[in-house]
Amino acid sequence: MKKIINDPKNVVSEMVSGLVRAYPQYLQKIEGTEAMIRSNEASMIDKVGIISGGGSGHEPAHAGFVGPGMLSGAVAGQVFTSPTPDQIYEAIKAANHGKGVFCVVKNYSGDIMNFDMAKELAEIDDIEVKMVVVDDDIAVEDSLYTQGKRGVAGTIFMHKIVGAAADKGATLAEIDVLAQKVMPNIKTIAVALSGATVPEVGKPGFELADDEIEYGVGIHGEPGYRREKLKPSKELVQELLSKLKDAFDMKPNDKYAVLVNGMGATPLMEQYVFMNDTLDQLADENVEVAFTKVGNYMTSLEMAGISLTLFKIEDDEWLSYLNYAVDTIAW
Amino acid sequence: MKKIINDPKNVVSEMVSGLVRAYPQYLQKIEGTEAMIRSNEASMIDKVGIISGGGSGHEPAHAGFVGPGMLSGAVAGQVFTSPTPDQIYEAIKAANHGKGVFCVVKNYSGDIMNFDMAKELAEIDDIEVKMVVVDDDIAVEDSLYTQGKRGVAGTIFMHKIVGAAADKGATLAEIDVLAQKVMPNIKTIAVALSGATVPEVGKPGFELADDEIEYGVGIHGEPGYRREKLKPSKELVQELLSKLKDAFDMKPNDKYAVLVNGMGATPLMEQYVFMNDTLDQLADENVEVAFTKVGNYMTSLEMAGISLTLFKIEDDEWLSYLNYAVDTIAW
Repeated sequence: MKKIINDPKNVVSEMVSGLVRAYPQYLQKIEGTEAMIRSNEASMIDKVGIISGGGSGHEPAHAGFVGPGMLSGAVAGQVFTSPTPDQIYEAIKAANHGKGVFCVVKNYSGDIMNFDMAKELAEIDDIEVKMVVVDDDIAVEDSLYTQGKRGVAGTIFMHKIVGAAADKGATLAEIDVLAQKVMPNIKTIAVALSGATVPEVGKPGFELADDEIEYGVGIHGEPGYRREKLKPSKELVQELLSKLKDAFDMKPNDKYAVLVNGMGATPLMEQYVFMNDTLDQLADENVEVAFTKVGNYMTSLEMAGISLTLFKIEDDEWLSYLNYAVDTIAW
Repeated sequence: MKKIINDPKNVVSEMVSGLVRAYPQYLQKIEGTEAMIRSNEASMIDKVGIISGGGSGHEPAHAGFVGPGMLSGAVAGQVFTSPTPDQIYEAIKAANHGKGVFCVVKNYSGDIMNFDMAKELAEIDDIEVKMVVVDDDIAVEDSLYTQGKRGVAGTIFMHKIVGAAADKGATLAEIDVLAQKVMPNIKTIAVALSGATVPEVGKPGFELADDEIEYGVGIHGEPGYRREKLKPSKELVQELLSKLKDAFDMKPNDKYAVLVNGMGATPLMEQYVFMNDTLDQLADENVEVAFTKVGNYMTSLEMAGISLTLFKIEDDEWLSYLNYAVDTIAW
């Protein structure tokens, strides 16, 4: 294992420490936890709080999206491990400014159980909590760690949508309706070129040959749906887009936001080439691309690969939320 | 070679195409070149233009820093290869709004020669051009591709400083004085865990054993000053910081900006841990850390590693320029 860390046992606490010390204008650590709350307290007054979180190893998700217009706070679990209910509960309390708290939870059994328990703890305190379960990964129906589809890079579109709505003064009930309506319109699928190594494990979760790729891998290295030889970018896009086209039942004049997301070790150069091919092939479908973003947003440690997210814009208000001004480290 | 590309010969043009199509609000391609100019033309009126550029493979540098408050344009050469004078000249022309153009050039012989030729071409058109040569890498005195020290991640601090000054209305002469005064105060040193592969070459520029690192490697894989076994983050910081302390003749109460820069394949998790250790050790020196930034800003394709940049703040105006609001893809 070749990583720039100290003791693998302390990697999350040292990471969170480095993050809040580097960016005190965005993040404050909640004492005794690995949860972080937005530093700009004034921007949260009289607004619904928005909390996300999950296992670490997906940086900049989720702390990188904390700031005015987006998340109120983020909870970092151990690497690829759900955060504990007590820590989520502390984040919910810190994010509550009398209007309740909305949680964005990726669809993993542990995350859902722990967010549910934190919600119950908060409700004892009379804090109203609602949540959306993000299950955007169309690669496989059930997977390691979860029933149903996994939550992956599309999560950051959800952060953006509910963050903007909260900042504009939407109520908790309105945000919940919005999120449930948006969710089936966000779909993602990935291709991996290499695996990722959890520090405490010390070896990659899976291995691929020098000329091999795997379609549909999850952000914790969960198995995908097919391995084959590496192909040119255009052909990778074709494979992933064909799955997305089917999943959306894509039609001419549909309107989409597109996220090309690097899994960690894939250079931006390759991501831009992949985006170029994606836009060519979407143009061939005669769909409208109304929003585009490329970069490392939901990573899997040092995994090489790319995920492609399409978000079908059924309401132009959603587009205005994607374009809504935010101040975060990573959006 | 395991890369998400099509034909290696077209990788730069396809990358530039993907970039400008994904971010039309920031970047326009200058027809017939791989140079890009800021889309927000109004923000450049009556101001000195700021151009940077160099070989590709360092994304998000430099196009990711084009936008109001920072660069006016960027020129992308082939991978690890200087852009040609005619393309730099086109970018200078597009950036000129009657107040002249300032160029930020990393210290590589090819870059300097080509920017000099472009400057001469522009001067024939009565466009006044000045430039600063960034040579922040303290690892080695002379290197492959250049005489004197190399220009690396500290370049983005230079972009930020001159970009802010230009946006605030400084003249070309004032920007030149500022840049020459700032330059000796920016110093960088790196550690590499793996090499990078230029697409047209197809194999890594250098190789390290599974447990081996190299200090002082350049952003094109130029040799550094020592190889040894991988050490914990704290000890890597100690090694790099000892070189920087000597180079600055660091004293208590000195004030610094700190950039921890990922070389491409190193996860943010490791960069945050490294930043945490850097801040601990700078605290031991009783210096003031006035600005901090962590992430992939000046990469070297899929190289794994980190560079550490310190920028000694001798004038608080420099700090205000670092904090000056910008609107770019990547700052």
